[in-house]
Amino acid sequence: MDGTMMRDVTSAIKNPTLVLDERIAKENLRYMAEKATGHHVRFRPHFKTHQSAEVGEWMRSAGVKHITVSSVSMAEYFARHGWQDILIAFPVNLRESTEICQLARDLKLSLLVESTYSVESISRKLDHHVDVWIKIDTGLHRAGIWCEKHDEIRRVAEAVKNSDWMELKGVLTHAGQTYHPASFAEILDLFADSNQRMNTAREHLANGGFPGLEVSVGDTPGCWLSDDFGGLDEIRPGNFIFFDAMMHNLGVCRMDQIAVAVACPVVAKHADNNEIVIYGGAVHLSKEKLEQNGKTKFGYVGLDAGNGWQVLNSNNFVRKLSQEHGIAQLEPENFKKVQIGDLLYVIPVHVCLSVHALDGQYVIISER
Amino acid sequence: MDGTMMRDVTSAIKNPTLVLDERIAKENLRYMAEKATGHHVRFRPHFKTHQSAEVGEWMRSAGVKHITVSSVSMAEYFARHGWQDILIAFPVNLRESTEICQLARDLKLSLLVESTYSVESISRKLDHHVDVWIKIDTGLHRAGIWCEKHDEIRRVAEAVKNSDWMELKGVLTHAGQTYHPASFAEILDLFADSNQRMNTAREHLANGGFPGLEVSVGDTPGCWLSDDFGGLDEIRPGNFIFFDAMMHNLGVCRMDQIAVAVACPVVAKHADNNEIVIYGGAVHLSKEKLEQNGKTKFGYVGLDAGNGWQVLNSNNFVRKLSQEHGIAQLEPENFKKVQIGDLLYVIPVHVCLSVHALDGQYVIISER
Repeated sequence: MDGTMMRDVTSAIKNPTLVLDERIAKENLRYMAEKATGHHVRFRPHFKTHQSAEVGEWMRSAGVKHITVSSVSMAEYFARHGWQDILIAFPVNLRESTEICQLARDLKLSLLVESTYSVESISRKLDHHVDVWIKIDTGLHRAGIWCEKHDEIRRVAEAVKNSDWMELKGVLTHAGQTYHPASFAEILDLFADSNQRMNTAREHLANGGFPGLEVSVGDTPGCWLSDDFGGLDEIRPGNFIFFDAMMHNLGVCRMDQIAVAVACPVVAKHADNNEIVIYGGAVHLSKEKLEQNGKTKFGYVGLDAGNGWQVLNSNNFVRKLSQEHGIAQLEPENFKKVQIGDLLYVIPVHVCLSVHALDGQYVIISER
Repeated sequence: MDGTMMRDVTSAIKNPTLVLDERIAKENLRYMAEKATGHHVRFRPHFKTHQSAEVGEWMRSAGVKHITVSSVSMAEYFARHGWQDILIAFPVNLRESTEICQLARDLKLSLLVESTYSVESISRKLDHHVDVWIKIDTGLHRAGIWCEKHDEIRRVAEAVKNSDWMELKGVLTHAGQTYHPASFAEILDLFADSNQRMNTAREHLANGGFPGLEVSVGDTPGCWLSDDFGGLDEIRPGNFIFFDAMMHNLGVCRMDQIAVAVACPVVAKHADNNEIVIYGGAVHLSKEKLEQNGKTKFGYVGLDAGNGWQVLNSNNFVRKLSQEHGIAQLEPENFKKVQIGDLLYVIPVHVCLSVHALDGQYVIISER
């Protein structure tokens, strides 16, 4: 989250570097923003995907006023860059109470809670208003209260109501179960199912004395693909602005909708098995992987196309990562095109992890 | 690689933080340094594990003069901290020629090559002396020339000889195949086998007109466990100073020899399945994992023991990681001991990746 960016200088790249295609990202953004407007839901994109003040400005230009982040430090960064309505979509970290209270003084802050203990603890520290969302688990089984535990959900709502500085805004989920289905239809089913569960949870709260609450949902696969936003008040997708190999493998995006690749210097070639050794390892790309046609892949591979990349077919991929090395396996005719000292582009499996690893610093290409 | 460290202030930790037990690390260091001295091999520890100027000073105090790094930027960092003999154990990155030439002017630099193309390309840029090692693959199949390709190895040696500024120092390998065996005995076999192959490669070079070359090897499992350093001139282990869950799972170290854990704030508890949600995810711990007793583990778990950690048994572990969240599964009696707002300690699977992700910034505990 450094904010430093260069333009159109891929030829000067020396080490593993995020390269961002501005046109593709803005097209993804336009589609998602218009869809949110068309469906009358609040668009609160997740900024953990790009972690960049400049990309944030693209979002502002597209009409974004409300944003989501995943840590207090990310909230502080975007607050410094003029964002005034921030949701920290991570269970309140009590060890950062001081920082949270300061953010509440400085801007319109929304917090996520899932226990009366957290609500009561942070409440004792607050001296300014915050909006509060109750985190609900609709099937991911990561964080949140299981959606059918109506009594527990209501107890948390009551704790929020008892706080001087908290206003209960609604129920919130991240239906990340849509990241692992086998088919397109299954994504839509999981999304619809999660939304139904959230509306049932809201209904129980309304019947229990908490009317008028909102529902906020968060996953890119569902928000990008579904046309049914019934019962939703807010969507928080993040990945959609860049997309990655995981989203492509799920069938959520096309290859030409992927806006970010990591440019990696080629440091060796092994002709026996058509393998390329790149400077680009687990510390740059992360060890997130996907299984495709019986093969484990740590990223798709693209050739240097002047100012940007040209993705190769799925027989060309990163097959291994260690700390700083990556091993790309190419088809013979592609292997021959690559020389030591060239750049090889890697489409990461999970772009958010690469962006974090490379501090959100991009070379932006505006034309290619 | 920031160099900032705090001492004995684990109570002030707010977000995922490396905690380093100074006594354990120094004990590991003492053992390895004395072993190298006893076996009359040059000790050139890999600094990618700690990436810290202060830990580097501990090494200097233990007699270390020669160091290994895995990138040009890491070489520059340690050069700024007074290190004058640095080996970059990564195939020469031609896109960093300018920086490499500057390092060659500033200190005694050693480079790694595995092709005539790289040798000739970097040679045209150099204006100061560098030592050169030929990277050999003895079974890891990551980088390097396969050890039996004697002609190819000799051609690279000849290219080095033809350079005005290069001196061929020897052959070098990282026998990382010792990271994945099933047994202790197998580690020793793989290490001995790799060393044998390296000596055969050296012999062929000697017969081909390149006498007097050295052999450098690099893996912690072999260097820590083996007592046979015959035929070796230099060892470059790195991980041994901290150790991690992977080394423990291999049987290389005991639990009480692990010197680093990541302190993670507890943000939620799920009593139904004894799960703890921590602020500590893939961007802090990496998605490196290990399989143990049929379970996938992203780290061992320790409880806060005042100033440091107390590791729990292997039924307590991190079972899932997403970008910023970790899910730790605990036994019921341990689950009860942990409260929201506490620190849970995670022993990472591969400590080098966590150190890199957390910029080599530690809280050092000197007494506990």
